[in-house]
Amino acid sequence: MTKYKLILSYDGTNYSGWQVQPNGVSIQEKLEEAFLILLKEKVNVIGSGRTDAGVHALNQVAHFTFDGPLDCRKITFALNGLLPLDIRIQALLKADPDFHAQHSAKGKCYYYYLNLDSVKSPFFGPFSWHISRNLDLSAMKAAAKILVGTHDFTSFSNQQHLGACKKDPIRTLFRLDFVDWAYGIRLEFEGDGFLYKMVRNIVGTLQEVGTGKLKVEDIPLILEAKDRQRAGHAAPPQGLFLAYVIY
Amino acid sequence: MTKYKLILSYDGTNYSGWQVQPNGVSIQEKLEEAFLILLKEKVNVIGSGRTDAGVHALNQVAHFTFDGPLDCRKITFALNGLLPLDIRIQALLKADPDFHAQHSAKGKCYYYYLNLDSVKSPFFGPFSWHISRNLDLSAMKAAAKILVGTHDFTSFSNQQHLGACKKDPIRTLFRLDFVDWAYGIRLEFEGDGFLYKMVRNIVGTLQEVGTGKLKVEDIPLILEAKDRQRAGHAAPPQGLFLAYVIY
Repeated sequence: MTKYKLILSYDGTNYSGWQVQPNGVSIQEKLEEAFLILLKEKVNVIGSGRTDAGVHALNQVAHFTFDGPLDCRKITFALNGLLPLDIRIQALLKADPDFHAQHSAKGKCYYYYLNLDSVKSPFFGPFSWHISRNLDLSAMKAAAKILVGTHDFTSFSNQQHLGACKKDPIRTLFRLDFVDWAYGIRLEFEGDGFLYKMVRNIVGTLQEVGTGKLKVEDIPLILEAKDRQRAGHAAPPQGLFLAYVIY
Repeated sequence: MTKYKLILSYDGTNYSGWQVQPNGVSIQEKLEEAFLILLKEKVNVIGSGRTDAGVHALNQVAHFTFDGPLDCRKITFALNGLLPLDIRIQALLKADPDFHAQHSAKGKCYYYYLNLDSVKSPFFGPFSWHISRNLDLSAMKAAAKILVGTHDFTSFSNQQHLGACKKDPIRTLFRLDFVDWAYGIRLEFEGDGFLYKMVRNIVGTLQEVGTGKLKVEDIPLILEAKDRQRAGHAAPPQGLFLAYVIY
């Protein structure tokens, strides 16, 4: 068996997320369907992690094993021919036998796009969160600074329902940067791992700091509380992009 | 009667173009429908010019007259509530009585987005022309340089069918710049006016120079020939944006 690594982009607008699930069409399912047609075989595609319904990816990484050699260039071309236009294979590469898209990952980077123009852009509506109120960006930056580093991020995660599968809630956020883009601010989150809905919960909390509903001084208390109820609402999925995975 | 000026953006993907026409839904029609609901009156919205089916606008300008004062901020908000999300009013302003969106225009700027990555972007597919072949950009720039200035652009226009309405084919292209963007090159055309399909015909011709099908030396001959058959194919509409109108 040979191991292969896929790098792919997708517009998540019309999907129920990365992972195959009973209701809705997932990215993983579309990939496995394309492989079945192409290789006449059920291929199990393992992603670096899930993305939720409506979340996008610039460079999601996945792996699969296949018994036999593949012409990576031809397969990339053929997969892109079979896949819908909102899912694009950027590269297919032979991988080390012990490579695992999820377990080998040392970190990830997510982008979250805030559209801060008074009128929502007709082009970036499905790819950003439009906030027409004035936000106090310096307060948001001060709050973000507190979140960078190693913390118990329980208050920013929706993991309660996972019960026994509950993961260690300690994570390290390497950076949380505010970068200008044409219609607002892009928040860049780079960390060694992210809990379920952690990025969206942080963005929603920062937005509440920006509107004055929460204060910068509330952030250490929210972290300390280890209680999801204490943080802000989750930001909507359409502004979130999995930018890249670090190996 | 008071004159008003509208500045609006739209994603042209799902429209038959700016102008009302028997088949398909136009941007102008959607605007006039929204005004009818809002002002209980048929308002005739005059644009700075047509955009074709599938062409987008960042800042299209239009004017209309209305008998009575309008609260511009409230009307903008209400129009955006009535219009589909792919058409957005950026501003509504009171205009001089002699302002005319088309006749007062001193020039226009169009952007054309080329996506030059090997794989088409899932995000910019509907907003760019994907060309996976290597293009000779320096040849394209040399060809573009020849087109800047005042010329008879008949060879780059599809006006033959307009018969008696045929316009003066002399136009001045102030600049034709190549600007890098995330996934390729944006061509910026600024000129005192553009003939029907002129931008798309120039882009298609430049692409043929880029692939080697046409040579830089062909450009003066194409201009001189005043024959649409001599220039390259029209580039597809989805890469074209009306960026702004100069008054």
